Amino acid sequence: MATCPVSGADVSGADVLAALERVRAFIDPRLDEALTFSGDAAPRLVEAMRYAVLAPGKRLRPALALWASSACGGSWDAAAPAAIAVELIHAYSLVHDDLPAMDDDDLRRGRPTCHRAFDEATAILCGDALQARAFEILARGLPPEVTGRACAVLGRTAGAEALVGGQQDDLAAERGWMADLASAPTATRLEWMQRINRRKTGALFLAALELGGLAAGAAADRLALLARFGRSFGEAFQIADDLLDAEGSEAAVGKRVGKDAGRGKLTLPTVVGLASARDRAVALAAEAAAAAASLGPGAEPLVGLAHWIVGRDH
Amino acid sequence: MATCPVSGADVSGADVLAALERVRAFIDPRLDEALTFSGDAAPRLVEAMRYAVLAPGKRLRPALALWASSACGGSWDAAAPAAIAVELIHAYSLVHDDLPAMDDDDLRRGRPTCHRAFDEATAILCGDALQARAFEILARGLPPEVTGRACAVLGRTAGAEALVGGQQDDLAAERGWMADLASAPTATRLEWMQRINRRKTGALFLAALELGGLAAGAAADRLALLARFGRSFGEAFQIADDLLDAEGSEAAVGKRVGKDAGRGKLTLPTVVGLASARDRAVALAAEAAAAAASLGPGAEPLVGLAHWIVGRDH
Repeated sequence: MATCPVSGADVSGADVLAALERVRAFIDPRLDEALTFSGDAAPRLVEAMRYAVLAPGKRLRPALALWASSACGGSWDAAAPAAIAVELIHAYSLVHDDLPAMDDDDLRRGRPTCHRAFDEATAILCGDALQARAFEILARGLPPEVTGRACAVLGRTAGAEALVGGQQDDLAAERGWMADLASAPTATRLEWMQRINRRKTGALFLAALELGGLAAGAAADRLALLARFGRSFGEAFQIADDLLDAEGSEAAVGKRVGKDAGRGKLTLPTVVGLASARDRAVALAAEAAAAAASLGPGAEPLVGLAHWIVGRDH
Repeated sequence: MATCPVSGADVSGADVLAALERVRAFIDPRLDEALTFSGDAAPRLVEAMRYAVLAPGKRLRPALALWASSACGGSWDAAAPAAIAVELIHAYSLVHDDLPAMDDDDLRRGRPTCHRAFDEATAILCGDALQARAFEILARGLPPEVTGRACAVLGRTAGAEALVGGQQDDLAAERGWMADLASAPTATRLEWMQRINRRKTGALFLAALELGGLAAGAAADRLALLARFGRSFGEAFQIADDLLDAEGSEAAVGKRVGKDAGRGKLTLPTVVGLASARDRAVALAAEAAAAAASLGPGAEPLVGLAHWIVGRDH
């Protein structure tokens, strides 16, 4: 297997931003098309779905799906249904997480959250319909021989064992439903938070990569490398996100910052300090880059992304 | 093609209840298994999912899936993933419809609704996770050659163009978001309600039948007969449901009755009167029974169900 000629540290932040811009130019018209419905769809619902998805955003999950496909010799067109599906799932999870009964957020990506721009019932239904559409797009668009596995991967990732389970345990910790947790040692509480983050955030990164690989017809050894990349990348991303919450400005991040400290939520930066947390993120990014590099030259965007993700300011 | 030897009117209500009881005995342990997760799942979430699904209920949608499979020469085992998936989608839609931001119901099937028994955030997440699980079970369990189509059918049915779209338009009508509708002629308003019902209720019946047929490897002509059965059955069911709301007792029905009248919601019984509505339901049931009968003797339970559904008192 060829090795990627660049270490990844050679890929500049400007290159990564340009690469993400190419992803956006490719995927946004396809997201628009995916959110165009027949006359049977409820107009206000469709408006809310489009508001939630066709919004500013990094398109990180579509990028992972498309770049995973490229890294495995597949086309972006083949991976487009996977890229759309993971973005719809991501967008739906944000809409529901922002609800008054959950995190009760008013601002998301610099704009009113969905239930603020519409209403609570519409926001709940918007999330529900986005989830259904994700599976429909994936089931219709992927090569038949991988559809079953792909839908099963997305179903597990979106469900009680990952995305939703992580959010539920996050609420449980925050609302004191876990009586034992509050009095547990710091290490236990930190481990609990990391387990939540792996499910709330890391799992959908892994799914994006796996679905992209599946769309490209990747063999098991390449899927395993994508997973190795994804695990390190996901953890690095989370630490970077926690650092932004601790240090970033609301204007740059586009959502409320300082939330974790305000809620007494444990994160790696609050436990080991900002500098140590940053070192850990950089080391994880290097691990991720190394895993991607062993996929060969086609994985260069993944290598660059791993390094970029820990240096970004938004 | 053999014709069903019974007219269906010969199938007694007791036979149908016994047949539904066999469905329950088959499907309930499988629903239990489908809601058994690894240690990654959030405990409170799993508890809520099991509460919402493993509850009293007719298991009508699983019955449609299993009986459609039988009618097309397939086994119940082959159709079990389809039967589980449609029941999980149905249960999730009830949990979300009952939420304070939606119908704000306290009672469902004679028990506290999910957000009453747990809390609002958990109920939202419970519905989300049930939907994801439905697709996971379907994708994993059906024969690979029909997985893509089956997941696409369920995705469309559960989404903006059917289940969720119907609920959204229902809210739109109720909350006066459709300014033109309030002043529209009765016929227009009734048609609007029927269009909502076809999406909120009828579509999932059709999906249950189609998925059951697909699991059995049914050809296009048999799938078309199942759809013909499903359309008439769905409309008959809806009228029967509206009649129960108008006439039934809360104790027998297991949920609040008289809701439609209280909300000024148009239904066929309120527009044409109880007797005419009942006649229409009986005629539709006969149409459904005729479509099922042309599938042959294996469709006897569907024939019986069509007649039973318009005579039931709960």
